Amino acid sequence: MRNIVARTSSFLVLLLLCTSQFASATRKTLNKEHPCKRFVLYYHDILFDGSDVANATSATIANETKLGDFKFGKLVVFDDPMTKDNHLHSPAVARAQGFYFYDMKSDYNSWFAYTLVFNSTEQKGTLNIMGADIMAAQTRDFSIVGGTGDFFMARGIATIETDTFQGAKYFRLKMDIKLYECY
Amino acid sequence: MRNIVARTSSFLVLLLLCTSQFASATRKTLNKEHPCKRFVLYYHDILFDGSDVANATSATIANETKLGDFKFGKLVVFDDPMTKDNHLHSPAVARAQGFYFYDMKSDYNSWFAYTLVFNSTEQKGTLNIMGADIMAAQTRDFSIVGGTGDFFMARGIATIETDTFQGAKYFRLKMDIKLYECY
Amino acid sequence: MRNIVARTSSFLVLLLLCTSQFASATRKTLNKEHPCKRFVLYYHDILFDGSDVANATSATIANETKLGDFKFGKLVVFDDPMTKDNHLHSPAVARAQGFYFYDMKSDYNSWFAYTLVFNSTEQKGTLNIMGADIMAAQTRDFSIVGGTGDFFMARGIATIETDTFQGAKYFRLKMDIKLYECY
Repeated sequence: MRNIVARTSSFLVLLLLCTSQFASATRKTLNKEHPCKRFVLYYHDILFDGSDVANATSATIANETKLGDFKFGKLVVFDDPMTKDNHLHSPAVARAQGFYFYDMKSDYNSWFAYTLVFNSTEQKGTLNIMGADIMAAQTRDFSIVGGTGDFFMARGIATIETDTFQGAKYFRLKMDIKLYECY
Repeated sequence: MRNIVARTSSFLVLLLLCTSQFASATRKTLNKEHPCKRFVLYYHDILFDGSDVANATSATIANETKLGDFKFGKLVVFDDPMTKDNHLHSPAVARAQGFYFYDMKSDYNSWFAYTLVFNSTEQKGTLNIMGADIMAAQTRDFSIVGGTGDFFMARGIATIETDTFQGAKYFRLKMDIKLYECY
Repeated sequence: MRNIVARTSSFLVLLLLCTSQFASATRKTLNKEHPCKRFVLYYHDILFDGSDVANATSATIANETKLGDFKFGKLVVFDDPMTKDNHLHSPAVARAQGFYFYDMKSDYNSWFAYTLVFNSTEQKGTLNIMGADIMAAQTRDFSIVGGTGDFFMARGIATIETDTFQGAKYFRLKMDIKLYECY
């Protein structure tokens, strides 16, 4: 009988440990290596030059300032196709709608906020993303701060890598979407 | 005695299931139908035409580009009243402070980021919101990505519906605020 | 034996209570007074006047509108140093990269979205922040909506206070960074 009481007590301790883990502000339960959902998409940006309305997917809405030589302050709004591979003309599985601007006087650097809009038979919903595009780094991480529809309340990290950069005309980013909160 | 050990073991399994559920990145515990807090507010936007300082609540800060015929790139900053019903002159229970811009070359579409600022005896605090306003859809969802004060650390979804659209002068959105994380 | 069954049953009830607590949308487990990580940094903003490229850290990219007399719509992009104390020339432990704009016609008020970029031996990673800078309040809270690197998936509150304001040329904000979700 004592043995059973001892076991029982040890359960109580386990249970308290289990609950207290969630009662504090610190939760150390997410594992970087194990997102609950992960996929890679490519982002294609073709900047409007004033005449190529048919092809362009983005446009400058505020010009660069004279603070340095790296386009500081240039603000671009985009509605860019997202494809599963890195071919511009592959079918778009989502749109990236948002903006970026350049924000460093000593080098190229930018900042993004946008929504991935999914509207296919496969997936419907959005992911909202923001972060610093630290171009000096090989890869950089944006925060996925919310989701809707099939991505209801999602959070995660989007790891960005420049796939090609062809001057002002066209650039392509690889976006590795990793969700750590899925509902 | 064996019976008790068996029961005890089954608890251990249950307990492990319980803890492991929270230890993985995947948490499937939120129910779309049961927000922890919900309320509807109406957003009123009166765009400044250069002379109506007394009435206007928003102003264009970057003009539309020539990328298509749907105001692509037009950027508007707003400080808009939020009311409980859809009458413009009802008392404002909050302010919506932020910006939107048009971002599609083939149709009207926009993108929003803003803060709902509550400062009444009833409620004090803010909700921070961002998302794609996919105008082609009857309703569209923004992400509520954070909150402060009475909305400390909140997250959720704001479902948007155009209530009226009177050209460039005035439009009104119904915002159905649903919080799924309340603290 | 009955006694044991009774105990066992009571555990089952406890266990169900424990799990159901996390199964609802409402979670009341965060304590405002006990962030899992906290530190104070000072933000220094020197607005470009057209000639001081060497010192300036921000630049106006859209001019104020004529909606009121409080710079409504003025949009500024910044890459500002963050220091541990309030001396402009202290070593920067992070950069704040983002933008703010003025958004009230009857008083000074603004709105911010930015990333704190840490890249030292001490800390690497980013924190993404947005919120209304309600200047009429002594302190105001922004939402920390996501983090990367050493701040993987973090959320929290940044409490802002104006430390000095020297006209258009220079202002300094104290930012009290409080994380309530740490992983």
